[in-house]
Amino acid sequence: MIPIAGQRIRKGLDMIGIGVIGYGYWGPNLVRNFATTPDARVVAVCDLDRQRRDLAALRHPGIETTDNPRTLLENRAVDAVAIATPVASHFELALQALKAGRHVLVEKPLTQSSEQGRRLIEAAERAGKTLMVDHTFIYTGAVRKIRELIEGGEIGEVLYYDSTRVNLGLFQSDVSVLWDLAVHDLAIMDYLMPEEPRAVSATAIAHVHGQPENTAYLTVFYSGNRIAHVNVNWLAPVKLRQTLIGGDKKMIVYDDLEPSEKIKIYDKGIELNGDLEAQRNIFINYRTGEMRAPTFDRAEALAVEAKHFVECVQTGKTPLTDGRAGLRVVRILEAAAGSIAAHGQMVEL
Amino acid sequence: MIPIAGQRIRKGLDMIGIGVIGYGYWGPNLVRNFATTPDARVVAVCDLDRQRRDLAALRHPGIETTDNPRTLLENRAVDAVAIATPVASHFELALQALKAGRHVLVEKPLTQSSEQGRRLIEAAERAGKTLMVDHTFIYTGAVRKIRELIEGGEIGEVLYYDSTRVNLGLFQSDVSVLWDLAVHDLAIMDYLMPEEPRAVSATAIAHVHGQPENTAYLTVFYSGNRIAHVNVNWLAPVKLRQTLIGGDKKMIVYDDLEPSEKIKIYDKGIELNGDLEAQRNIFINYRTGEMRAPTFDRAEALAVEAKHFVECVQTGKTPLTDGRAGLRVVRILEAAAGSIAAHGQMVEL
Amino acid sequence: MIPIAGQRIRKGLDMIGIGVIGYGYWGPNLVRNFATTPDARVVAVCDLDRQRRDLAALRHPGIETTDNPRTLLENRAVDAVAIATPVASHFELALQALKAGRHVLVEKPLTQSSEQGRRLIEAAERAGKTLMVDHTFIYTGAVRKIRELIEGGEIGEVLYYDSTRVNLGLFQSDVSVLWDLAVHDLAIMDYLMPEEPRAVSATAIAHVHGQPENTAYLTVFYSGNRIAHVNVNWLAPVKLRQTLIGGDKKMIVYDDLEPSEKIKIYDKGIELNGDLEAQRNIFINYRTGEMRAPTFDRAEALAVEAKHFVECVQTGKTPLTDGRAGLRVVRILEAAAGSIAAHGQMVEL
Amino acid sequence: MIPIAGQRIRKGLDMIGIGVIGYGYWGPNLVRNFATTPDARVVAVCDLDRQRRDLAALRHPGIETTDNPRTLLENRAVDAVAIATPVASHFELALQALKAGRHVLVEKPLTQSSEQGRRLIEAAERAGKTLMVDHTFIYTGAVRKIRELIEGGEIGEVLYYDSTRVNLGLFQSDVSVLWDLAVHDLAIMDYLMPEEPRAVSATAIAHVHGQPENTAYLTVFYSGNRIAHVNVNWLAPVKLRQTLIGGDKKMIVYDDLEPSEKIKIYDKGIELNGDLEAQRNIFINYRTGEMRAPTFDRAEALAVEAKHFVECVQTGKTPLTDGRAGLRVVRILEAAAGSIAAHGQMVEL
Repeated sequence: MIPIAGQRIRKGLDMIGIGVIGYGYWGPNLVRNFATTPDARVVAVCDLDRQRRDLAALRHPGIETTDNPRTLLENRAVDAVAIATPVASHFELALQALKAGRHVLVEKPLTQSSEQGRRLIEAAERAGKTLMVDHTFIYTGAVRKIRELIEGGEIGEVLYYDSTRVNLGLFQSDVSVLWDLAVHDLAIMDYLMPEEPRAVSATAIAHVHGQPENTAYLTVFYSGNRIAHVNVNWLAPVKLRQTLIGGDKKMIVYDDLEPSEKIKIYDKGIELNGDLEAQRNIFINYRTGEMRAPTFDRAEALAVEAKHFVECVQTGKTPLTDGRAGLRVVRILEAAAGSIAAHGQMVEL
Repeated sequence: MIPIAGQRIRKGLDMIGIGVIGYGYWGPNLVRNFATTPDARVVAVCDLDRQRRDLAALRHPGIETTDNPRTLLENRAVDAVAIATPVASHFELALQALKAGRHVLVEKPLTQSSEQGRRLIEAAERAGKTLMVDHTFIYTGAVRKIRELIEGGEIGEVLYYDSTRVNLGLFQSDVSVLWDLAVHDLAIMDYLMPEEPRAVSATAIAHVHGQPENTAYLTVFYSGNRIAHVNVNWLAPVKLRQTLIGGDKKMIVYDDLEPSEKIKIYDKGIELNGDLEAQRNIFINYRTGEMRAPTFDRAEALAVEAKHFVECVQTGKTPLTDGRAGLRVVRILEAAAGSIAAHGQMVEL
Repeated sequence: MIPIAGQRIRKGLDMIGIGVIGYGYWGPNLVRNFATTPDARVVAVCDLDRQRRDLAALRHPGIETTDNPRTLLENRAVDAVAIATPVASHFELALQALKAGRHVLVEKPLTQSSEQGRRLIEAAERAGKTLMVDHTFIYTGAVRKIRELIEGGEIGEVLYYDSTRVNLGLFQSDVSVLWDLAVHDLAIMDYLMPEEPRAVSATAIAHVHGQPENTAYLTVFYSGNRIAHVNVNWLAPVKLRQTLIGGDKKMIVYDDLEPSEKIKIYDKGIELNGDLEAQRNIFINYRTGEMRAPTFDRAEALAVEAKHFVECVQTGKTPLTDGRAGLRVVRILEAAAGSIAAHGQMVEL
Repeated sequence: MIPIAGQRIRKGLDMIGIGVIGYGYWGPNLVRNFATTPDARVVAVCDLDRQRRDLAALRHPGIETTDNPRTLLENRAVDAVAIATPVASHFELALQALKAGRHVLVEKPLTQSSEQGRRLIEAAERAGKTLMVDHTFIYTGAVRKIRELIEGGEIGEVLYYDSTRVNLGLFQSDVSVLWDLAVHDLAIMDYLMPEEPRAVSATAIAHVHGQPENTAYLTVFYSGNRIAHVNVNWLAPVKLRQTLIGGDKKMIVYDDLEPSEKIKIYDKGIELNGDLEAQRNIFINYRTGEMRAPTFDRAEALAVEAKHFVECVQTGKTPLTDGRAGLRVVRILEAAAGSIAAHGQMVEL
């Protein structure tokens, strides 16, 4: 399971030195994965909390720790920075890192606003450095398999994407459930859907007075007869990660909590026959064929993602989830927040 | 299973003669259940289709069949009429029946518009007859148990109702999925929620050009911090009947497709501690206790409902799902249709 | 759902008159299905219990009812007899019917002993009449599909059949859980397995003193490296109908309680490589491919079976589940009972 | 999640130095858990494979590594030895360790034979050292909760234990599925059942010629009307960890693969009424009440177990899973192997 080779701490010519800012919930996963990524070496970890720094030091002997991002950025062994701090600090830290000539991987969502996102993209271009957003699900074997199924034509035209992503989750005080959970679906949709959405209508509620919304419902409109819907909730009794993707040939159920069959492809749908002008249900036939659960790559998403980031840094190629992908998602989140404030009124993108 | 006594065809003083209009999908269930309801006797069945009439006659020897509702209404043995025809005909048939001095049970939704609903309620009052709408789920043991749990205080304040009701269903050409599937949830909400909603925001799509919407998403707003959401879809690969009901003490998962444990009560939630003014997540504690699946009455809903209708007819008492309940649901459907046309803009009720 | 044509009560030249003996739990299903079988007509029903006879008469006007099997057998309109009485009476009733020149369909298990089974087979041959046993599962689309998968070679060599068939069931006072539940699996195995078993080892327990065993475990040995195991229990908290069928190419999970995907075919298994003489696990490779859930005929098993019985009666062809199939199953039950008495000692067949 | 304090590498007066022999599949879990156990410190790791030793050294800087168990036993900092090697070597290694005056924790099963088990117990007594067997499941919150439910009387008299433990597993060439998987159930039964079993009947098959049995079925007999059954299989398409425990008051379903509700308690059963001498099913009533899923301690079993081992070593108290528990399980395995050889014939214990 654990590739031994990747754990040898050496730093050759092309070896990328990684600095991780933020060692809270997600940071340790970044450190652990970069530690076993070929051509990468975790050089430094920054966290404001002393206990977290001690823990990083204990787990990864030889890593430099600091409570000051500036110190980390001044470290010449740091070629690239992974930022896993609260959303509010993403923009400033990423901007500083890019200005300091470092490649940057930012935790999702990229920034708090599309304006910030655009400025980061510009900064990265000016610096000629890689800017990548950590849309983790894009690097899972399951989501990549679904894209393959869509691109290969097996599903046909995608008619809808419908996701329920709820659990009794960590209420966050700085961002709403929209920016915490819905961002996953928007990132997946950005990767899977063959076009960009054109508008969004959203509603939400904050059950705890003064706190951000903990329940939100988004409808995302595309051109033609395509739609997406996302239901996110931090106050649910059970954990659900249930996604239906309806195509005009086949339909997919994607359940990330299923231990083995995460993707099920149903050879089901309707067929329109006869005189469509007549528009009577007699012309709609129901098709119910077999279901199959394909195999897919089961590598840890973050390992795949870390490798991809290092490769982009080394070769200069554009990441799958580059700054623009991050910006596209932030724009929808921003529009959704506007729609929520307007009680569901559609906001164009 | 089948109470023999109820099947004896006799008609005493208090015996209610039932006429059923519409012997398509739902009508046979009405006939079958009224046939075994104490104090009721199915006298006549009306259907336009000869094959359906023949089938009714074969299954229930002794029942009069006709293709003309007027004939059925002129039958003096018919004291009450159950209407199971397409929605578009509900209003006219019910109005005729009430004017002819018959008690009326109408399939859901009550009418096509709230204006029609109001007129039926007036007609029933004028005629001094019972008007009841067939909100079947209200008569299931599961939904009645959930109301009991809410009223008994075990759940605490209801914070949200969230339902996913999807399947590869019969595309209907006269009504949208809203009037076909969402009506079930609106009827359940009308029964369970301690107050009437104040507004609705809805979005939808018709994947088949020229046909009614087959996918719809409703957010229903209540006063205070209460919300409801309904996701209905005729074009889903799997059948889901999944309802989450979040209370501030406990939370319910209600899954009508579960063969045994349809209701699960989770002793889960959050607790707010400390200085709420500070509004930091450090004051939100997560509580995770046991789950329990209570028992409930497993009698067939329609049998319970038929008995209730006959009792209301006999005693003059107001049905649990009277015309006003039907009207309240139609008003939300109407508002939702308006919101869909306005791309999600909230419509006040 | 209900084919109207089949319900027309007429009796042409080739029309087979059916008499049903026993109108308890299963008899009504037989009557209901023969009533809609082409070329069949239910003529008479016999039950000792007056209430049951009244119910049959109420449901099926025109059927003759009697409390005396002899009366039913003397009815010249009765061409064939379906026996759905307690097991202890199967042999006598079937024998009388055959001697009276009637075709016979007997509820499972065929008889209480293999001796009785052999005598019935002889009697049927002597009379030149059809003798069929109601091994219902053989007529389900699911089991027929599994046989197709095995015969088509997709599964490869069948290595094992492993079934868990438990629930909180009706404790029977005349037969043990072996003769009530395990009989289903033995009938399915008789149909699916490419050879007859050669021995059985079984254990069981009666938790209620003086009552038959309510829990039993059977291991059935075949030649070569093939085995079967059946776990049956009337005292289980949940209902399970879980069957694993392992082949050397693929493996099947068959769950009769699954509403849609009853059969799942797993492209999983082991592959033996290298020097098999070395016999070290390094030579066993694990293969994990996709899973698929095929479609299958969803017609009601008993309808298919009734049609097959009538066809065999008309044409003289040998039923799929003839007396010999019934006998083969009874022989295993008998041997299993012997093994139980000997605390698991293997009994050769 | 990870207690930081426990990771500080220090060794005070009562600090127990742990040496781990075998760093293959299970050894790393032992090292990881002892590393965070209060009052314990992992001093040395022994493995024949150089790559495994390198990995241990990389992960746990400061640990001594060796390919020779003798070297590890000569290390004076080693107070206690945890043995996670193939079963065939358990006896020799544990005996050497005890003779060298070390406390011993042995991977399950304790030994290859009851004779060996007895000799280890004697050796431990002679040396005055702790001998414990790693029956991991006994230290899970779920199994401890079930014991609590049984001891508290909620379940009533335990009538049966029925476990299905199958998957497409690692075919082992040194031990059969009995010694690999069934041992878990026998250990759980040893902990839960109120008495020792008195006999066993078992059957099994080796689908790969020359390899140990990969499929086995055990029936374990207790006095009175109590029974247990274990179905283990390395060649199954799906992973099942399904245990039914029937009591005369309530029944438990324990499924270790359920992410949240691992234990479900069903208020179901039968009640015997009336004249039991009459022995007719009319006197058996079925009771179906609510189901509840209790909460339980979710701490990692091996962490609890490591702490318990250290405590026993420090205080001299008898481990929950001492050598005698290990021996009791080995005796049943031995008897089961005998019964398998005799094709199911019951072997007394």
